Amino acid sequence: MLDNPFYGPLSQGAFKLFDLGNLVLESGETLRGAKLAYRTFGTLNADKSNAILVTTWFSGTGKVMEDVYVGHSHALDPERYFIVIVDQLGSGVSSSPHNTPAPQAMAKFPRLSIGDDVTAQRRLLAELFGIERLALVVGCSMGGQQVYEWAVAHPQMVERAAPIAATARISLHQRVFVETLKEAITSDPQWNGGWYLSAQDVRNGMDRMARIVATQGWSTQFYQQERWRDVLGMSSLDDFVNGVMKAYFEPMDPNALLCEMHKWQRADVSRHAAGDLAEALGRITARTMVMPISHDCFFPPHECEVDARMVRGAQLRVIHSPEGHMGLNGFEPGYMQQVDQHLRELLAA
Amino acid sequence: MLDNPFYGPLSQGAFKLFDLGNLVLESGETLRGAKLAYRTFGTLNADKSNAILVTTWFSGTGKVMEDVYVGHSHALDPERYFIVIVDQLGSGVSSSPHNTPAPQAMAKFPRLSIGDDVTAQRRLLAELFGIERLALVVGCSMGGQQVYEWAVAHPQMVERAAPIAATARISLHQRVFVETLKEAITSDPQWNGGWYLSAQDVRNGMDRMARIVATQGWSTQFYQQERWRDVLGMSSLDDFVNGVMKAYFEPMDPNALLCEMHKWQRADVSRHAAGDLAEALGRITARTMVMPISHDCFFPPHECEVDARMVRGAQLRVIHSPEGHMGLNGFEPGYMQQVDQHLRELLAA
Repeated sequence: MLDNPFYGPLSQGAFKLFDLGNLVLESGETLRGAKLAYRTFGTLNADKSNAILVTTWFSGTGKVMEDVYVGHSHALDPERYFIVIVDQLGSGVSSSPHNTPAPQAMAKFPRLSIGDDVTAQRRLLAELFGIERLALVVGCSMGGQQVYEWAVAHPQMVERAAPIAATARISLHQRVFVETLKEAITSDPQWNGGWYLSAQDVRNGMDRMARIVATQGWSTQFYQQERWRDVLGMSSLDDFVNGVMKAYFEPMDPNALLCEMHKWQRADVSRHAAGDLAEALGRITARTMVMPISHDCFFPPHECEVDARMVRGAQLRVIHSPEGHMGLNGFEPGYMQQVDQHLRELLAA
Repeated sequence: MLDNPFYGPLSQGAFKLFDLGNLVLESGETLRGAKLAYRTFGTLNADKSNAILVTTWFSGTGKVMEDVYVGHSHALDPERYFIVIVDQLGSGVSSSPHNTPAPQAMAKFPRLSIGDDVTAQRRLLAELFGIERLALVVGCSMGGQQVYEWAVAHPQMVERAAPIAATARISLHQRVFVETLKEAITSDPQWNGGWYLSAQDVRNGMDRMARIVATQGWSTQFYQQERWRDVLGMSSLDDFVNGVMKAYFEPMDPNALLCEMHKWQRADVSRHAAGDLAEALGRITARTMVMPISHDCFFPPHECEVDARMVRGAQLRVIHSPEGHMGLNGFEPGYMQQVDQHLRELLAA
């Protein structure tokens, strides 16, 4: 186990850990002493009809969801809803390779799936709060993969679903792309098969990964317009790559990111229907709003549209954001305005 | 110097080497014993008005231009034109780090620019054939960067210009992307600062680079539609990554590719006008046809359009090809049909 203060409350704000005990995984392995980080906002009403689950994306934690997506000025308003933000497994705060004791530490941490996240989240909601039905499940990117998994695997529990900047089945393009990120880290000799002594030792591999993320996390228009100046306050291309992209990943744990990548790369609800995506998405009963980001190179709108057509009654709302995928961090006010507008409409329905 | 049979005539077909002697570079350094690989087709007419220069792209050589772009069935018809295909410097066949003797071999090979290519090509055309004016300069990708360089630096010599899938100034997005390719190679300990004993030793780094190229060289639609089946005859995603992408780069020389990347990453005609791109492109007098590829992630149409607007009288013709950038290899018959149609119109004007 490695101590990493970045994943503690000084960086992550207030969160709680829910002890799942043994979590039997989709792979058949058991993650022992599994823990989920979560934070709640608002009050669960008497009939437990106002619960909203918010999931997290790759490299993100509950903190960014709290800061950007939740609040009285947002659709996810704690004065109306009981909002539960759950860190995905491998987030660095929830159970992850570096914070799990032997014999499942580091390189021996089990391979997880998005299905395992949903199983764990379901147990948290039921065991802690007695929640059996969610007014809404919403998440972005890998968080959106969890939304689709919820809606397909537990249709009776999901009243509304809002996958933002995500697809229901990982594209083959993303499978290759994520592999380039994994290779950037695992090719660093200091990674040492996952047995590094300090995350900082794997800095070269992490930096290479950060640069690759930069090439598709942001749109070509973002670069063309040098939007890092106005949007991020950076003074040049190098200032952006070093000061935003590398700096963002710098405090994180390489194995935690690899754990998430493994899930990201395999997210696919069609496995519930022997590979038939239409059959799987046909099981969704939630009122669903599919929200791609206009300039997204990870989950381009044309792929999200295909999903939306297979979900009964789904509405497609393309969020215009020239940032591309990373726009989901809410750098631009226009982004959250659109998300809030769509989510309010969905919640009112 | 390393012997690499891939760059010999058994793989590259018939070509000749033109000895430039000393080539004084834009950097101020001199490349001694510089050589350009070239091949010609057709006959130069009496007034030397039918000469066409064809340039080469990153990792490509004259061979692919000969095979795909030149022939009686194409606009570049040797029965009408005297066609000169010149390998760019660093192609592996023309002067490159591995085929240059000490003291400029391998890691000590000078850093080159697209301007150096045009200087060398101009000398070849003048000294070998007495050509002072070109009916057309055409090239794709890095070859298109050379086309823009020709048209801006030597407007009086270029009657027509056809940059395909290229921009006149490298985008900041491409600068970051190309850096990820360089890092994939240079992070391989076997690369050894450029002093490997065999290109095969750098296989891991080259393979990582090949996978990164795969993520943007082809469109997301290419992956979505699994077009490697029909277009390339590959049976699966892994078959495609291994059997096409890694196999393509496998016989090549890492330092040669790095040499080209250095040029690719810095191609910018605006340096002729102190950074003013409009001023530089305003110097073009060639009849110009700008041809982006519809699904190109390297040089997206929206960037090529910006260039076209700055070239007096330029016509923009978007080539529809769902393959993306790699479509320029002409895998689909529809691609060359469009290119030929546009080039015929340009040559007739």
